[in-house]
Amino acid sequence: MFNTKMSGLALALFTSLICCSLALKSPNESLPNIIIMLMDDMGWGDLGVFGQPSKETPNLDAMAAQGMLFPNFYTANPLCSPSRAALLTGRLPVRNGFYTTNAHARNAYTPQEIVGGISKDEILLPKLLKEKGYTSKLVGKWHLGHRPEHLPLNNGFDEWLGSPNCHFGPYNNIGRPNIPIYFNSEMVGRYYEDEFVIDGKTGESNITMMYLNESMEFILRQSKAHRPFFLYYAPDATHAPVYASKKFLGKSQRGVYGDAVMELDYSVGVILSWLKQLGIDQNTFVFFTSDNGAALYAAKEGGSNGPFLCGKETTFEGGMREPAIAWWPGQIEEGTVSISSHLRNELMAVRLGLYKAHYWTWSNSWQEFNSGINFCPGQEVINVTTHEQRDHTLQPLIFHLGKDPGEKYPIRVLSSEYRDALKSISPIVEQHQKTLVPGAPQLNMCDLAVMNWAPPGCDKIGKCLKGPQSAPWKCEWPH
Amino acid sequence: MFNTKMSGLALALFTSLICCSLALKSPNESLPNIIIMLMDDMGWGDLGVFGQPSKETPNLDAMAAQGMLFPNFYTANPLCSPSRAALLTGRLPVRNGFYTTNAHARNAYTPQEIVGGISKDEILLPKLLKEKGYTSKLVGKWHLGHRPEHLPLNNGFDEWLGSPNCHFGPYNNIGRPNIPIYFNSEMVGRYYEDEFVIDGKTGESNITMMYLNESMEFILRQSKAHRPFFLYYAPDATHAPVYASKKFLGKSQRGVYGDAVMELDYSVGVILSWLKQLGIDQNTFVFFTSDNGAALYAAKEGGSNGPFLCGKETTFEGGMREPAIAWWPGQIEEGTVSISSHLRNELMAVRLGLYKAHYWTWSNSWQEFNSGINFCPGQEVINVTTHEQRDHTLQPLIFHLGKDPGEKYPIRVLSSEYRDALKSISPIVEQHQKTLVPGAPQLNMCDLAVMNWAPPGCDKIGKCLKGPQSAPWKCEWPH
Repeated sequence: MFNTKMSGLALALFTSLICCSLALKSPNESLPNIIIMLMDDMGWGDLGVFGQPSKETPNLDAMAAQGMLFPNFYTANPLCSPSRAALLTGRLPVRNGFYTTNAHARNAYTPQEIVGGISKDEILLPKLLKEKGYTSKLVGKWHLGHRPEHLPLNNGFDEWLGSPNCHFGPYNNIGRPNIPIYFNSEMVGRYYEDEFVIDGKTGESNITMMYLNESMEFILRQSKAHRPFFLYYAPDATHAPVYASKKFLGKSQRGVYGDAVMELDYSVGVILSWLKQLGIDQNTFVFFTSDNGAALYAAKEGGSNGPFLCGKETTFEGGMREPAIAWWPGQIEEGTVSISSHLRNELMAVRLGLYKAHYWTWSNSWQEFNSGINFCPGQEVINVTTHEQRDHTLQPLIFHLGKDPGEKYPIRVLSSEYRDALKSISPIVEQHQKTLVPGAPQLNMCDLAVMNWAPPGCDKIGKCLKGPQSAPWKCEWPH
Repeated sequence: MFNTKMSGLALALFTSLICCSLALKSPNESLPNIIIMLMDDMGWGDLGVFGQPSKETPNLDAMAAQGMLFPNFYTANPLCSPSRAALLTGRLPVRNGFYTTNAHARNAYTPQEIVGGISKDEILLPKLLKEKGYTSKLVGKWHLGHRPEHLPLNNGFDEWLGSPNCHFGPYNNIGRPNIPIYFNSEMVGRYYEDEFVIDGKTGESNITMMYLNESMEFILRQSKAHRPFFLYYAPDATHAPVYASKKFLGKSQRGVYGDAVMELDYSVGVILSWLKQLGIDQNTFVFFTSDNGAALYAAKEGGSNGPFLCGKETTFEGGMREPAIAWWPGQIEEGTVSISSHLRNELMAVRLGLYKAHYWTWSNSWQEFNSGINFCPGQEVINVTTHEQRDHTLQPLIFHLGKDPGEKYPIRVLSSEYRDALKSISPIVEQHQKTLVPGAPQLNMCDLAVMNWAPPGCDKIGKCLKGPQSAPWKCEWPH
C-alpha cells in the first residue's frame, strides 16, 4: 500500500536542473540562490488568490501576481514525512523508503518513537547543491527521522534551526520527551520550555518570528559573502496545535489557524522584500508550497482545500493538490498561470491529463470515523469517501477534474468516455508497476528508546533525559 | 415562508444614491453612467480570483485588480426572480411580492404559466434614474413577469433586447410556447427558432454575442449623444441549458458551463475596453454580480460555490454569497477588497457580523432528493442540509462564517459563544419581524392561458400561437 505523485518530485528535479545547467558558468556568483518555502498542512484554499474568502494573504497574492501561480501542483504524498522525503530526494516515497508494509497502515510518518528515517543511500538536494558551491540551511521542521544519522547536517545541510519532529505536546518528559529544537547539530532547548513555549490556551508563540529572523540572518550573511545559498524554509505554525505571535493573534476571521496564515504570509512578504533590499531578488528562485492538504479532521485548527474533496491523509484532491507559486523577478514573467498537463502517477490514484483514476479508495477507518475523526466533513460521497480500503483495481473510479474538481460524479463505467480514459491510463500504470523498485520501508518499526531523550548538546544545557531500554515493536498507525 | 438578504438591496440603494447625490451638479453629463452586470446561476467559486482552479476569467480577475472585490456580497434570495426583483426595487421579496404563500412552497419564481409579476406599486431603479435624465436598457433576461403590464418598458426601462422568462425548451409550441425574445415592447422571435437557436447537442448558440453587440451599440449611442445611461446587462448563458458560441465551445476544462463562463468573461472584458476606448470609463460605475449561487443539482451544467455549503435554492452560503466586483477608474481605488460587516437579515437565516443563525433549515424535500436531485452533492451535513423543513426558531443553528465558511460545525448550544451570538441577533430579528409589511404575493397563481402564446409583435413576424382558455390554479412548486 503506497501512494505517490510527481510534482513535489518535479520541483526537486527542477531546482537541481537550475543549478546544474547554470553551473557551467563561473564564478559561483552567477549561480542563483534557491529558497523553498514549505508550509505545514496549509491547504490550496487558504490563499486569497485561490479563494480564501477573508483574504489573509496579501503578500502571497502579490507574490503570485509577480510570479507564476500553479493551480495544478501536487505533493508526492498527502502526509508530512513522505511528502518532505520526496521533495528533498526527488524520488517517490515507495522508492526512498518513506512507507510502511505493516498491515492496514497507509499514512505513516516519523513520530518520536519511529526507528527509521532517511536512508544514507538517498541523495538529498542540498548534497547536490554542495557540489556546486552552495551553502544550505534548513529553518524549521525536518521530519525525515530524528536519530543522529537521519538529521539534516548528516544529510547535506550546513545549518539548521528547528525541530526533528512535529511540535506535539506538551509532554511530561517522563513518558515521552518534549520535541527538541536544534541549532545545527545540537539541541538548544525543547518545545513548550523556555523561549520555545506555545501557550496551550491562547496559541501564542514567538517561534514563527524566530524562524523569520534566522532566515533573514542567513540570507544576509550569504549575500554579503557572495556565496550561493539554498534556504529550505519550513515553518510549522499551521500544523495543529496551531500558533501565532501576539501581534497576529485575533487578527484573522477564523481563529488561530488564520492568524498563523497571516503571520506566515507576513513572513513571506518580509523575505521577498529582504531579497530586493539586498539586491539579490533577480538572482534568487523562490518556490512556495505546502507539504499536504489542509487537515479537515482538525476542524477549527485546520485550513481550507477550496473546492476539492477531503484533505490531508487522503488521495483525493484535497489531500494532494497544493498551493504553489514560483517567483524569480526577471526570469519568471509576471502574472503567469501554468496549467500543467504533466503526468502524475500513483497506485492509490493516477492523474493523466484531466482524468483521475482511483484504484483504491479510503478516507479513514470506520473505527476512527466512529470515534469522531472525519477526513471529509460534510463531504461524504457514496462509494468514494469510503471507510474501508476498497479495491477498485479491476475497475477504477474515474473523474474528470476539469468538470468535477470535487470528485463527486464518477464517470459512468459503460460510457465511451470511461473506456477511452482507462485505455490511456492503464498502460502507464502497468509500466510504472513494472519498473518500480521499492526502497526498504523506514516506517515499520517503533521503539520508545529511540525518542528524543538525550539529543546531542543536551548535556550543555542540562536537558538530557533518561529513556527506557530498547523494546522495538511493529508500529501501529491510526488506520 | 420567505427569505431575503440585504446586499443585492444595498446595491440598488447605492446606485440610486450615486445618481441622486451627483444629480445636484449639472449639466447631465456629470452624471455617471451605471452598468449592472448580472450573471445567471454563476457561483462565487467560478471566478479565478475566488479560486476556480482552471482560471477561466482573466478579464474578471483583471477587473477585480483594477476595482473593488467583495468576498462577502449576498443576493437577496437564492433564486432568480425574487433576487432580480429585489435588485431592481431595493426591497425584500416579501415586501415586493416575489414570494408565495402556497403550502410547502419556498423557492418560487416566474415560469411561463405564472399569473403574477412585478407590481405597479413598486418603483424600479430605472424609473428613479429617468427622473435624473438617464436612458435605461435591459439586455438579457427579465424574469419579473411576462404579461404586458409586467414587462421592462412598462417598468422604467426605455429599451430591451432579451427574454421575459428562462430559456427553457425547446417546446413544441402546442402544449407550451417557446420563450419569446423581445426587442423593446415587441417580440422578434422565439428561443430555439431562427437566429435564436440553442443546439441541444453541442450547446452552441450566438445569443451571448448578440447581447454583447447590443450592449456595445447602446453604450456607443448614449456616449455620442452625451446622455447618461443605465445598462442592465443580464445574459443567461450559464443557466442550464448552458450555451456558448462556436468560438468558445470546448475551450474550458469543464464542458459547456466553463465555455459559457469564458465567453461571458470575454464579453465583460470587451465592454470595459469599450468604455475606455470611448473615453467614458472614468464616468461609468460598473458592478458585476450574479443572481444566486451555482445550481449544484445541475451537476455538469452547474458552476462552483467554492468552499461554501450547497447552492442555488438554499439559504446556505453556497446559495446566497455571490461573486461581486465594483469598477470605476478614478473613483474606486485599485485592488481594494471590501470585507463588509454590514447587517444582512432574513427569516430563514440571519447573518450578523461573522455569525449566521439558521432559523429554518432545508436543502430540498425527500421526494425530490430521492428522485436524484441533490442541492448539496457530496455535502450532507447532519442536522443542517435537512430534507424536511426544520424549525429551529426556538434554538437557531449558529455558525461562525470566518472559522467555518462551509457551515459544517454548528456552535455548541451550551457555549458562551452561542449565548453571546444569539443575544446580539435576537433583538434584530424581532425588530425586523415587527416592522415588516409583506406585499401581495405574486407567485401563488398559475394559468396556462397567460403563457407566451401571442406576445405583442407576434403578428408582424407570423409567430402568434393560440393558447387555451383561462383556468387558473394554485401553483405547485417543486417542493
